[in-house]
Amino acid sequence: MGNKECPNGVAIPPPQPFMKSLKYSLKETFFPDDPLRQFKNQAASRKVVLTLQYFLPICEWGPRYTLRFLKSDVIAGITIASLAIPQGISYAKLANLPPILGLYSSFIPPLIYAMMGSSRDLAVGTVAVGSLLMASMLGKEVNYIHNPQLYLHLAFTATFFAGVFQASLGLFRLGFIVDFLSHASIVGFMGGAATVVCLQQLKSILGLERFTHHADLVSVMRSVFSQTHHWRWESAVLGCCFIFFLLITRYFSKQKPKLFWVSAMAPLTSVILGSLLVYFTHAEKHGVQVIGELKKGLNPASVTDLVFVSPYMNTAIKTGIIIGIIALAEGIAVGRSFAMFKNYHIDGNKEMIAIGTMNIVGSFTSCYLATGPFSRSAVNYNAGCKTAASNIVMAIAVMLTLLFLTPLFHYTPLVVLSAIIVSAMLGLIDYEAAIHLWKIDKFDFLVCISAYIGVVFGSVEIGLVIAVAISVLRVLLFVARPRTFVLGNIPNTGAYRNVEQYPNAKHIPGMLILEIDAPIYFTNASYLRERITRWIDEEEDRIKASGLNSLQYVILDMTAVANIDTSGISMFEEVKKIVERRGLQLVLVNPGSEVMKKLHKAKFLDEIGQRWVYLTVEEAVAACNFMLHTYQPNPKKDESGGGWNNV
Amino acid sequence: MGNKECPNGVAIPPPQPFMKSLKYSLKETFFPDDPLRQFKNQAASRKVVLTLQYFLPICEWGPRYTLRFLKSDVIAGITIASLAIPQGISYAKLANLPPILGLYSSFIPPLIYAMMGSSRDLAVGTVAVGSLLMASMLGKEVNYIHNPQLYLHLAFTATFFAGVFQASLGLFRLGFIVDFLSHASIVGFMGGAATVVCLQQLKSILGLERFTHHADLVSVMRSVFSQTHHWRWESAVLGCCFIFFLLITRYFSKQKPKLFWVSAMAPLTSVILGSLLVYFTHAEKHGVQVIGELKKGLNPASVTDLVFVSPYMNTAIKTGIIIGIIALAEGIAVGRSFAMFKNYHIDGNKEMIAIGTMNIVGSFTSCYLATGPFSRSAVNYNAGCKTAASNIVMAIAVMLTLLFLTPLFHYTPLVVLSAIIVSAMLGLIDYEAAIHLWKIDKFDFLVCISAYIGVVFGSVEIGLVIAVAISVLRVLLFVARPRTFVLGNIPNTGAYRNVEQYPNAKHIPGMLILEIDAPIYFTNASYLRERITRWIDEEEDRIKASGLNSLQYVILDMTAVANIDTSGISMFEEVKKIVERRGLQLVLVNPGSEVMKKLHKAKFLDEIGQRWVYLTVEEAVAACNFMLHTYQPNPKKDESGGGWNNV
Repeated sequence: MGNKECPNGVAIPPPQPFMKSLKYSLKETFFPDDPLRQFKNQAASRKVVLTLQYFLPICEWGPRYTLRFLKSDVIAGITIASLAIPQGISYAKLANLPPILGLYSSFIPPLIYAMMGSSRDLAVGTVAVGSLLMASMLGKEVNYIHNPQLYLHLAFTATFFAGVFQASLGLFRLGFIVDFLSHASIVGFMGGAATVVCLQQLKSILGLERFTHHADLVSVMRSVFSQTHHWRWESAVLGCCFIFFLLITRYFSKQKPKLFWVSAMAPLTSVILGSLLVYFTHAEKHGVQVIGELKKGLNPASVTDLVFVSPYMNTAIKTGIIIGIIALAEGIAVGRSFAMFKNYHIDGNKEMIAIGTMNIVGSFTSCYLATGPFSRSAVNYNAGCKTAASNIVMAIAVMLTLLFLTPLFHYTPLVVLSAIIVSAMLGLIDYEAAIHLWKIDKFDFLVCISAYIGVVFGSVEIGLVIAVAISVLRVLLFVARPRTFVLGNIPNTGAYRNVEQYPNAKHIPGMLILEIDAPIYFTNASYLRERITRWIDEEEDRIKASGLNSLQYVILDMTAVANIDTSGISMFEEVKKIVERRGLQLVLVNPGSEVMKKLHKAKFLDEIGQRWVYLTVEEAVAACNFMLHTYQPNPKKDESGGGWNNV
Repeated sequence: MGNKECPNGVAIPPPQPFMKSLKYSLKETFFPDDPLRQFKNQAASRKVVLTLQYFLPICEWGPRYTLRFLKSDVIAGITIASLAIPQGISYAKLANLPPILGLYSSFIPPLIYAMMGSSRDLAVGTVAVGSLLMASMLGKEVNYIHNPQLYLHLAFTATFFAGVFQASLGLFRLGFIVDFLSHASIVGFMGGAATVVCLQQLKSILGLERFTHHADLVSVMRSVFSQTHHWRWESAVLGCCFIFFLLITRYFSKQKPKLFWVSAMAPLTSVILGSLLVYFTHAEKHGVQVIGELKKGLNPASVTDLVFVSPYMNTAIKTGIIIGIIALAEGIAVGRSFAMFKNYHIDGNKEMIAIGTMNIVGSFTSCYLATGPFSRSAVNYNAGCKTAASNIVMAIAVMLTLLFLTPLFHYTPLVVLSAIIVSAMLGLIDYEAAIHLWKIDKFDFLVCISAYIGVVFGSVEIGLVIAVAISVLRVLLFVARPRTFVLGNIPNTGAYRNVEQYPNAKHIPGMLILEIDAPIYFTNASYLRERITRWIDEEEDRIKASGLNSLQYVILDMTAVANIDTSGISMFEEVKKIVERRGLQLVLVNPGSEVMKKLHKAKFLDEIGQRWVYLTVEEAVAACNFMLHTYQPNPKKDESGGGWNNV
């Protein structure tokens, strides 16, 4: 068999028309999930129905809706409404916006999402991190105390741009940008943001009047401890009691998932208890701040409030893009997790269009940034929701509140809202996930902890930038410094594997078999040239020391080299020269189709000779052994168990 | 053999101490060429000598210097001096600096480089692209006509920071940053810069007094054609004649490399001819501008001229970093190419220290940015230089010129300098390389042409940013959208290969064998989950259509998966759920050591079961076939030639 050097040549793929391969690449990049597959071979009328169902999933599940579904959705909807009302008011305070905006934002956006969204479990509403980010970014431009009107209008404008950005990402199939926020960076970022949000609550829990406008740990601590004489014990005691109550109910529900409603109802219960307490004890006169009057009535229109003049517009655009992407990352991750549990499919790009549209419409109707927060969606899921109709039920409940019940919130103490925020935020500090990251992947842990530290000691934006930068750096570093391995033969098989991973793998005398573990691009071409040269040096040193057969062949296993660019091809030409100058022969094994195509076009295959390109390492070793034994003046006996003897 | 399910288990590498693997990663990242290898097992005194030789290579080659070397180096040195003097003056004009600076910069830096550089062929001097960049970046801050003193001082400061940046990149072993400028982007960038430089020369060739300060094509063309009535035919004729003369000599030397000195001497000849012509015809009074007086004497000190006050310092730092990295990219690429020809080794990081030091010292002695330009180094190489001593010879020749010959340049017409620049720049527009890129790699061509267009229609900085951004985007896109292939059995072998590349590869009934061609990171985890699901869908459709055996096993060949992060592991857990929900079994083949380690730590191996992890696809197929035939109620006959029958 050895005299037939190359029984199965490595195929050079036939040249493809440029447009065809371009089309293929574009499809894989922008339509990896092939959303148009169901449209194939359908009648025109059917296509219209499918398109409608694609953009408005309610057209798909609506006709199949049953009374049994309705019962479940009503229960789930009322449960999440009881959570949404106090949370909405709290988060609006966090964003330095009028509390009523939190209720507005839990009315219109859920209705839009119920029609357009493809998740059955997402419960739509405002989020703490988004609110905080908005407050910190808009606060740099406009002071919300001195100019509340402009601040409010900027918030609508930022929400509008966030929606436009989200919807365009979806329309242009750029959803993969969200993937650049890795899980590790989100864990760190969310934990940091939750910490910062908790720190902010010290203001109302301690009943302080003045407070720093910075959000970082150092500023807040300095602000808190510089005015110890202003701390109000009434407020602090109340706050601690409610936090304790909320945490206890959460712990209880966690132990027995059937009792999910205990923790879901706890915030509303706290609000009612707190309001009654203030109403009867007149605690508002003893340093316990209350919400005050909330306007009755549904969302007023706000289209005319959008600000399209610089310099405010630039701030709004910047804020919109940042909060838009953070909101998307949370909404889509939450939607995907629950879809995974219930075994249905979510189209990320479609979700982006839905979330984007709901924010655009929201910005026209006095709402600010909404998405699908994890805590509320989990309650929705546990409450047994069947379809997005639970969002409609929640919206109706919020609508009734807006129409008739707002005066009841007059005496709600701010400290209860802070307690609700703190207890929700503590759940976001996922230290267990951070420990898990440390155990499995140190680099992911580094990303996570950097994001956390960046948020807590710097600002939310700094943390975000650090997390994305380190994540991207890791990818670049992987490509810039690929691993190369020496391969050896696994005894009694034809397989060649990394000798470090498989200590029983045997070196083949006279040959150095290397595996390159990444595409060969400009970023790593010089490194690989240096590294291959060093492998050859080290192998020659080793051989000199042990007095074995001298090195004759350098075999490069290209299985893992997925692609190559022109710098990579130049690298190969240089390696070939280096190898030949030392009197060695370069042998390539199993280059993939892309690599083969390019090596062929660059005439490198002609240079090296097609006979030095093999399909498997086994064949290459057999052929080299044949050469060694035929042409060498004094061939030593092959001592290894591998290669030649096993073919 | 089939009943022994896993004859060679996939090894889980033993857990390594964290510090050890960290040390290994750091070494591979920062010391891939292992520069300390020669220091191992040496006496202390020998180590001192080696360190000295490391930082001052002249200590290594100096003692071995012979008279024969000297002869060659003197000839080469005089040749490059005759090129360096006119080019130096021209490029200083291009940087809007006093012409004498070009001579200063060809005196001190070459001396420093001769001591510290490890290239034997690099001829040190100023470069056109660096000069242009400096003019455009400093020109934004300070007008060189209204405030020449400050402009000059800023140029020294920028050179100082460029040197500091270059030397620190080398000292901190960060040389790989230069690798992020791919060959393709450099071709486009250099071509664009050369075009822009040529366009700038229209000013002196047409004898125009007023000229736009913008460098882009549109502004220059508008400026040139808006003042056609100011064109001076005397100047234009002179310019065209000299360009023609220079191009002819270059063509001549290219045809017969032995006559390299013809083109090397041509610029100096042009300068002498032009000066004589002006002197005798008094053409300076007929619209032919001349250099005017050049100060006699060596470089004055300029340490005290460095500007360390904002806002100027910020401009100088920014300019320094950009011109520093561009100069490095050119110098190192040139050094490497010639080292490749002559078969010696260049240490990139050491070169950076040498180039950086020479610029720092240069900034103290009235020099501006110097590096190793390609054209001059090629002349040096062709003239037969043996060591860096040719730079010393050139420096001495320039010194003599500075001391005695500067008055001779009084009548040198600017148009001759422009002709010299144009003829040098035309050689940098490497359209053949661009065609080569188009043929081999369309994406590299896109990078190249974007850089070119960015420079020509935008600015040099825009072109640079575009080129780097597209190059990095390509790397990110590669990782975000890895290829996945279906594998089939190559008849009569145990090898499994991509069925698209090898049309004769046979599908194995009941199994879907997929190869993933990239590390599994957060950027591609969701894509891969979608894509694998789609492969399974398509395979099931295909099977349904053809009425074959139903799908039973999904085999993932992980050979090319070099690494995985925690997002990747979650992806695997999800894929396992998806696969199992369809009643299929997931099988892994040949995970590498990094991947095995992490899958083990994340307990995924226990979840999937060690028996479903195989060393080769062949073994996995054999084991699956064994299961199919043993446990299936009605096993059909295996029709393929692959797998089972061949084991």
